Amino acid sequence: MRKITLAHGSGGSLMHELIKDLFVKNLDNPYLNNLGDSALINKNLAYTTDSFVINPIFFPGGDIGKLSICGTVNDLCVSGAKPKYLSCGMIVEEGFDYKDLEKITLSIKKTCKKAGVYVVAGDFKVVEKGAVDKIFINTSGIGEMYQNAMLSASRIRPGDKIIVSGTIGDHGASVLLAREELKFKSRIFSDCECLNGLISSIICKDIRFMRDPTRGGLATTLNEINAQCSYDMTIDERTIPVKEKVRALCEILGMDPLYMANEGKALFIVSPKSASRILSRMKSHPLGKNSRIIGEVEKRKAKKVYLKTKIGGTRILDMLRGEQLPRIC
Amino acid sequence: MRKITLAHGSGGSLMHELIKDLFVKNLDNPYLNNLGDSALINKNLAYTTDSFVINPIFFPGGDIGKLSICGTVNDLCVSGAKPKYLSCGMIVEEGFDYKDLEKITLSIKKTCKKAGVYVVAGDFKVVEKGAVDKIFINTSGIGEMYQNAMLSASRIRPGDKIIVSGTIGDHGASVLLAREELKFKSRIFSDCECLNGLISSIICKDIRFMRDPTRGGLATTLNEINAQCSYDMTIDERTIPVKEKVRALCEILGMDPLYMANEGKALFIVSPKSASRILSRMKSHPLGKNSRIIGEVEKRKAKKVYLKTKIGGTRILDMLRGEQLPRIC
Repeated sequence: MRKITLAHGSGGSLMHELIKDLFVKNLDNPYLNNLGDSALINKNLAYTTDSFVINPIFFPGGDIGKLSICGTVNDLCVSGAKPKYLSCGMIVEEGFDYKDLEKITLSIKKTCKKAGVYVVAGDFKVVEKGAVDKIFINTSGIGEMYQNAMLSASRIRPGDKIIVSGTIGDHGASVLLAREELKFKSRIFSDCECLNGLISSIICKDIRFMRDPTRGGLATTLNEINAQCSYDMTIDERTIPVKEKVRALCEILGMDPLYMANEGKALFIVSPKSASRILSRMKSHPLGKNSRIIGEVEKRKAKKVYLKTKIGGTRILDMLRGEQLPRIC
Repeated sequence: MRKITLAHGSGGSLMHELIKDLFVKNLDNPYLNNLGDSALINKNLAYTTDSFVINPIFFPGGDIGKLSICGTVNDLCVSGAKPKYLSCGMIVEEGFDYKDLEKITLSIKKTCKKAGVYVVAGDFKVVEKGAVDKIFINTSGIGEMYQNAMLSASRIRPGDKIIVSGTIGDHGASVLLAREELKFKSRIFSDCECLNGLISSIICKDIRFMRDPTRGGLATTLNEINAQCSYDMTIDERTIPVKEKVRALCEILGMDPLYMANEGKALFIVSPKSASRILSRMKSHPLGKNSRIIGEVEKRKAKKVYLKTKIGGTRILDMLRGEQLPRIC
C-alpha cells in the first residue's frame, strides 16, 4: 500500500511529482496549470497559502508567528504583488501555554506592522493532547500586482544574470542548531524577514523572474525556475554567499548549504544590461546588502542547472531528492 | 500557568473571549473590529479562512475534504458573497495512506465543481508520525459581494422573523455516532453541503443577516447575532426541525441538538413582510425544503435569546460554555 512519506513534503522532486499527479491532475482547473508562488485572480490580485509546522516554534531570529507572516508575504512579493491582506488559521494542542500563544501573536503583530500588511481573517482550533505537535499555523495572503512588474519564466534569455539577495542556508542552519542542541559556541540566526520592502525598491520590467528559495534551498528553487524556461543555467560556487558559521555547521554534519532553507532571501533572474544597476540598488537595502550575482543563463537548451565548483569542476545541480530536514518551516 | 483548553476552540463563549482578548486586541486593525464570517477587502471582496481537524476524517455524508470546501464556501455566502476562489493547505502525517489522500482530493474536486468554485492555491506539508493526527486541512476563500445584499446586524428590527434552512444537529450527531461506534440500527448522515446555490436563489435586501450555525450550534450562533444587534430574540422549540434519529441520539447521550454543529444549514433574520415569500422560495430549493420560521426579534433590549420550551416555559438560551464535542469540524 502506497504511503505518504516525509519526502513528499520536502519541497523537492517527490513533492513536485505528488502535487502534479494528485492535486493538479485531479483538481483540474486552469489556475493550477502554472504552479507559481501564488495564483492570479480577478485580473490584478495574487493569492497564495502556506502552512507552518516548524519545530522548534521559537528559534534564534524568529518564531512560528513571524515565519508564518514572512512566508506568505514573500510568496506574494516574488510573484510581483504588493502584499496587502492575510488570513491566519491556528491549530493548537490542548495544554499549550497561554504566554507562548501571546508571544506568537505579538510576533505576528510586529511582523505585519513592519511589512505593512493586515491579518483580516482568522480561525482558531484546539485539538486534544497528542493530536498536533504544539501549534501549526496556516496563513493565506492577497496582494495587488505591481503595474511595473513583468514576471514570466518565458522571458528568461541567454546571458541573463542570476542574483541572490544574500547569504544562503541561514534559516535551515539556525533551526537545525536550535533543534539538535549541538554545542556550538554561538547561535546561528535565521534570516526570517519580509522581503516586500526590498522587492518594491527594485521592481522593474528588467527583472524576468523571482522566487524565494525556502524548502529545498537555492538548488531546488533554481531547478524549479529552470524547468519553466528553455535554457540551461550555471552558477559559480565561489560567488555564492554563505556565512562562515553556516558553512562550518554544514561541514560538520555533511549537509549542503545549497539545499538548506532560507526565509528571507530571493533569487532574481535579470536582464544583463540592468544587472549591475539592480544589484547596486539591492545592496543599498538592509536586506540586500550581501546580494551577489552568482551565475547566468546559458544558450544550451538541455534544461539543466550546473554548478561550477570551488575546485574548478562543473557538475549538474539537481533538485533535492528525499528529505534533508523535516519541519523546517 | 494559564493553559489553552479544548473549550478555547469550541466555538463557544471561551473561544470568543480568547479571540477578543488575545487576537483582536493585539493584532489591532480595523478589519477585525467587526468579527463576521469573513472580512470585506478591496470594496467588494469577502475573505475568510477555516481549519478542519475533524475526527474521523471519513463520516456518513462527507469527509474532511468535502467539509473543508463547504465550510469556507458557506462562510463566504452567509457574508453575502458569491464564493469564487479557494486556497487549500494540507498537513499530513507520515505514513498516511495514498489512497485516502486521493479520495479526499477527489471529494474536494467534486464539491468544488458542484459549488462552482476553484482551488487556485495550495500547500502540502508532511510531518513525522505522531506530530499530527492523520490530516488537517486549512481552506481560505475569496468571494464577490452580491450587489443586491444588504447584510448588517444593525438593520435587525423588532418583528423580524428568524428562519432556519432545515433540520439541526445532523452533522454533530453524524460525527458523534461515527466516532463512538454506538450500536444504532442505522447511520445518521451529516448535512455537509455548500449553501451558495440556496443563498443565491433568495438573496435580497429583505434579508437583514445570515450566519451558518457550525461549532456551538444554533444556540451559539443566535447569541452571536444577538450580541451584534440591540434586541432580544425568542425562538420556539416546537418549531425547530430536528430529525427523529438525531433527537433520539441526543436523548440517549444527554446532549442538546441546539448546541450540535451543522455544516449545511443557515440562519436568516428577515423582514416580517417578506418572511413568507423568502421561506417559500427556500422550500423550493433542495437544501431548503425543511426550512422553518422558528422565532422572532423582540422589542425588549436586554440582549438575550429566549427559548419557548415544548412544555410551555420560557428560558434564557445561552451560548455554549465549555466544549460539547471536540474536533467536530
